[in-house]
Amino acid sequence: MQITNDLEKLAKLVRYYSILSSTEAGSGHPTSSLSAADLMTCLFFGGFFRYDLEDPAHPNNDRLVFSKGHASPLYYALWAAAGSITDEELKTFRKFGSRLEGHPTKAFEHVEAATGSLGQGLSIGVGIAMNAKYLDKLPYRTFVLLGDSEMAEGSQWEAIQIASHYKLDNLVGIMDVNRLGQRGETMYGHDTDAYKKRVSSFDWEAIVIDGHSLKDILSAFEAALQVKGRPCMIIAKTLKGKGVSFIEDQDGWHGKALKKEDFQRAVEEWGGIDAKVRGQLLKPDDMRPERMRPEEVEAPAYIKDELTATRKAYGNALKRIYPAYPDIVVLDAEVSNSTYSEIFKKEYPERFFEMFIAEQNMAGAAVGLSNRGKIPFVSTFAAFFSRAYDQIRMSRYSDANIKFCGSHAGVSIGEDGASQMGLEDIAMFRAILNSVVFYPSDAVSTEKLVEQAAKHRGIVYIRMTRQAVPVIYSKDEEFIIGGCKVLTVSENDVITVVGAGITLHEALQAYEELKKEGIFIRVVDLYCIKPIDAKTLHDAVVNTRAVITVEDHFEEGGLGEAVKSVFAEKPVPVYSLSVKKMPKSGKPGELLDYEEISKGALISKIRDLT
Amino acid sequence: MQITNDLEKLAKLVRYYSILSSTEAGSGHPTSSLSAADLMTCLFFGGFFRYDLEDPAHPNNDRLVFSKGHASPLYYALWAAAGSITDEELKTFRKFGSRLEGHPTKAFEHVEAATGSLGQGLSIGVGIAMNAKYLDKLPYRTFVLLGDSEMAEGSQWEAIQIASHYKLDNLVGIMDVNRLGQRGETMYGHDTDAYKKRVSSFDWEAIVIDGHSLKDILSAFEAALQVKGRPCMIIAKTLKGKGVSFIEDQDGWHGKALKKEDFQRAVEEWGGIDAKVRGQLLKPDDMRPERMRPEEVEAPAYIKDELTATRKAYGNALKRIYPAYPDIVVLDAEVSNSTYSEIFKKEYPERFFEMFIAEQNMAGAAVGLSNRGKIPFVSTFAAFFSRAYDQIRMSRYSDANIKFCGSHAGVSIGEDGASQMGLEDIAMFRAILNSVVFYPSDAVSTEKLVEQAAKHRGIVYIRMTRQAVPVIYSKDEEFIIGGCKVLTVSENDVITVVGAGITLHEALQAYEELKKEGIFIRVVDLYCIKPIDAKTLHDAVVNTRAVITVEDHFEEGGLGEAVKSVFAEKPVPVYSLSVKKMPKSGKPGELLDYEEISKGALISKIRDLT
Repeated sequence: MQITNDLEKLAKLVRYYSILSSTEAGSGHPTSSLSAADLMTCLFFGGFFRYDLEDPAHPNNDRLVFSKGHASPLYYALWAAAGSITDEELKTFRKFGSRLEGHPTKAFEHVEAATGSLGQGLSIGVGIAMNAKYLDKLPYRTFVLLGDSEMAEGSQWEAIQIASHYKLDNLVGIMDVNRLGQRGETMYGHDTDAYKKRVSSFDWEAIVIDGHSLKDILSAFEAALQVKGRPCMIIAKTLKGKGVSFIEDQDGWHGKALKKEDFQRAVEEWGGIDAKVRGQLLKPDDMRPERMRPEEVEAPAYIKDELTATRKAYGNALKRIYPAYPDIVVLDAEVSNSTYSEIFKKEYPERFFEMFIAEQNMAGAAVGLSNRGKIPFVSTFAAFFSRAYDQIRMSRYSDANIKFCGSHAGVSIGEDGASQMGLEDIAMFRAILNSVVFYPSDAVSTEKLVEQAAKHRGIVYIRMTRQAVPVIYSKDEEFIIGGCKVLTVSENDVITVVGAGITLHEALQAYEELKKEGIFIRVVDLYCIKPIDAKTLHDAVVNTRAVITVEDHFEEGGLGEAVKSVFAEKPVPVYSLSVKKMPKSGKPGELLDYEEISKGALISKIRDLT
Repeated sequence: MQITNDLEKLAKLVRYYSILSSTEAGSGHPTSSLSAADLMTCLFFGGFFRYDLEDPAHPNNDRLVFSKGHASPLYYALWAAAGSITDEELKTFRKFGSRLEGHPTKAFEHVEAATGSLGQGLSIGVGIAMNAKYLDKLPYRTFVLLGDSEMAEGSQWEAIQIASHYKLDNLVGIMDVNRLGQRGETMYGHDTDAYKKRVSSFDWEAIVIDGHSLKDILSAFEAALQVKGRPCMIIAKTLKGKGVSFIEDQDGWHGKALKKEDFQRAVEEWGGIDAKVRGQLLKPDDMRPERMRPEEVEAPAYIKDELTATRKAYGNALKRIYPAYPDIVVLDAEVSNSTYSEIFKKEYPERFFEMFIAEQNMAGAAVGLSNRGKIPFVSTFAAFFSRAYDQIRMSRYSDANIKFCGSHAGVSIGEDGASQMGLEDIAMFRAILNSVVFYPSDAVSTEKLVEQAAKHRGIVYIRMTRQAVPVIYSKDEEFIIGGCKVLTVSENDVITVVGAGITLHEALQAYEELKKEGIFIRVVDLYCIKPIDAKTLHDAVVNTRAVITVEDHFEEGGLGEAVKSVFAEKPVPVYSLSVKKMPKSGKPGELLDYEEISKGALISKIRDLT
């Protein structure tokens, strides 16, 4: 297909729309939009970007991620110039209920991923490009618009290094070097060679251009699409506010909309606008990936009381269930022999991606893979997800379908000490809107919950333990999202104890010990901390005097507070045992005792209360 | 002073101690220690490292950060070889109660910062080196031992770029390129030139050496100390497990201790060990920084009902209180005109550090500055602290004294949308052990709490609002850590409403409106969310039917759960209003209504309950 777009007219239109929407909103980032207007106009309408406007989900569409999400006026202007947004709708920009949010979100159908927290788009692009090259095996390309300020984020360099490691020659970065950050000049100003030196040192092709010369830009894209065996970065020297003479390249104009009179003045400078012109996009070839048909898989096979770490069961589960969920891919941050994702890797190496010790990029790439219909299981130590919390938070706004699986939770890891202990991971993941938080206590429940995670669309966290623990469930036990298990019940129960994971075993031991003395407790396995099974919990506490929660996690935001929330409105006394002292090295048992979350601490608390 | 150490003997001793402690512990990382043993022996005992063993706090000591904290056997071996640890104590490595934890922590007096979560040490080194060059103006040097695997972390590249930006020629990185990560080869294996290319592209001096040639190493340190105007990285090709023939350069030996018989075999290979030899360290010149004498400062001056954003008051406070707390330094991630830390910057530019959009490094550098006795106030948008959560978590284990100040909290920021809204920051910071979490609601309380933060030693978080809000307190009002304010009390109060920050104003408006109808509510300003003022809250709810919490934050881990914890043991019904729907763009008022945390939502909830 040949397309004949008038790029100069379209660039003008895109500028016009960029200031129209933001002036109407009274806020937004027109100047950061204007600097990249020529770049993006050429990409869209210069015969490079292949995208079916009628079918945003087409698997062979090229993909564009606006990593500099604050340039949303430009982003929407492009789609308006392509005919997907009317002038009227553009004027709803940033207004309550509009699809055109302040920073791009999934409310607008063409958005690949929510951006606006800087330095995340390239990782997302990496995931999308990895999918094209290694999974779907399609020729679509991924373009990422980057700001120069955001190149200071380390996550960019994680993405840069992994993109060349995986030889992503279907990934093109476009760096809009407009010199000015929010509060003044960036670290390198207009020194495009500084960027070139750095980016090419990581084995990227790097092309420096004048970002306002349409000729330069077109040649750069042509060259970029020829690069083989490695990704390409177009580094464009631009002016912030380009095209509006009185704000061009001026400090103090970041994130400021033009006033209505300035908007008029700009349009007059341009000698008016042809707001009827529309640009045509190339269509992608109608290629689709081969898809495996899901197959039935067997139930997990464990023997009761046998010792297995839940992290090991996680690896086993991935391997077991993959045929039933052939969209699964597994990512790990260089600890696959600790998280046991290596079990999956050995069986399905082509579905496993080593992401090295770069958790931010791993989470971002997972957003990209999810965008392309995959189900990423992303594993590392629970503690190290704290490294990617911004990406995790944003993944929710990208409506992503990701399973974060954290091993080595809690002080029960023992000798390695505080740095390796996940003690705030439940708090982190509970605070993600509509997330699911699982904390299985044995191999069977882990396997079943990994399967539930694969089945459920959304953000799921699975918390896993380092130590081997006995299997307590039979292989036919069912586990649902939003459930819990009441494990011991008698008419004489005095206290309800709610635990999960490692502490559930402490609770069960306390049960056995107290039973000998004729003291009975009701033990609940809260394997699903969010959404929480309020009904079962309410029923469970009937006839017991109080609830004691016990968890290998800091008090705040953890299992205990989740349970307290259940009982907050219809009060039942809830006591919580949790990690409250400076964690340190020692044997697992010593540390559970020291933090007062062991069997012994439970027994002593129960004695206090009865 | 001349020192004459036998480096070969000492290197052997250091190897011996590295395997002794880990074999005794039955766990740990001897192989990752052995690869860097020659490098570190030369640094310590080759006449480079100047450190007063009797005075670890000496302000002119050179500083060593073990970014690859898992090489703790080596770290302790060095201090043992210097005479600071006995053979007996070495054998307590990783045992409960020992100062010698699995990864270095502040339990051991010579540790500069807790490490073990990889990729953080260089940022800490940056902070320590910035202090020497720009604040204390002392000639001490900072050395950071880096692993090759951890170079995949983006935070390293944040540190690398800022170190050259600030021309830290007093900072020396030592990269131990032992080729093998935890589960196999690193991204670049033994390709030291790949590292050199990348590191020098960021304007560092980079020196590639054989990391087992004492001659090479000594020359490299000599050269490194001559470099002017930029930092220096020594990139050393090494072998994991070097010196123990049967594990040298072999995969599958990460994080594994030698068995006792293998330990014996190694010592026999060496032909025995002279465990009596000790190395001597150079002493630093006895130079000390000039210190300003604290001065009294005036109280803040605001007029009641005047509109001021709390973020603005934050900037004002920093400027106002600096003379009283001359150890303050301020760091900001390129948003100083939004957080208003620019007010401080304009007055005290030499105490302000622009850290650009690289929050991880900013937090890490703050640990380094705190290590050198400074009080870092670290500001950015509340949402973007999620980017540095791992560093924040670790800063606590470094016993750091840092004030994290997050602006633009909550949906009340309005049009910018979800990406810019801090909605999980309370959860994050509450889950830091012994942290203090402030959430002031007006300019006066902000100023007072900034002062409390400066006074208090430890991790403090201050949550700030974008919008201007009326001043509600007189300038003489006192605010303490662990306090709250009961703002309205009558005998007829039916409900206690607990809010803070933006929602406190909604609560006060609800109070005024309901009062007209003869319905009275008790309004509590929970300006200190942690530690929480349980006593005042318990007293406050007496004679009211229930508590309603209202917060501009997700439900989990937030203000509501903090309050629920207060009442969990002695039940009082607590209802919570919080952000529960997908956040979006809109006017602040629209969004407070949409999330049902506005005056209107409160009134309707109160009507339901009364």
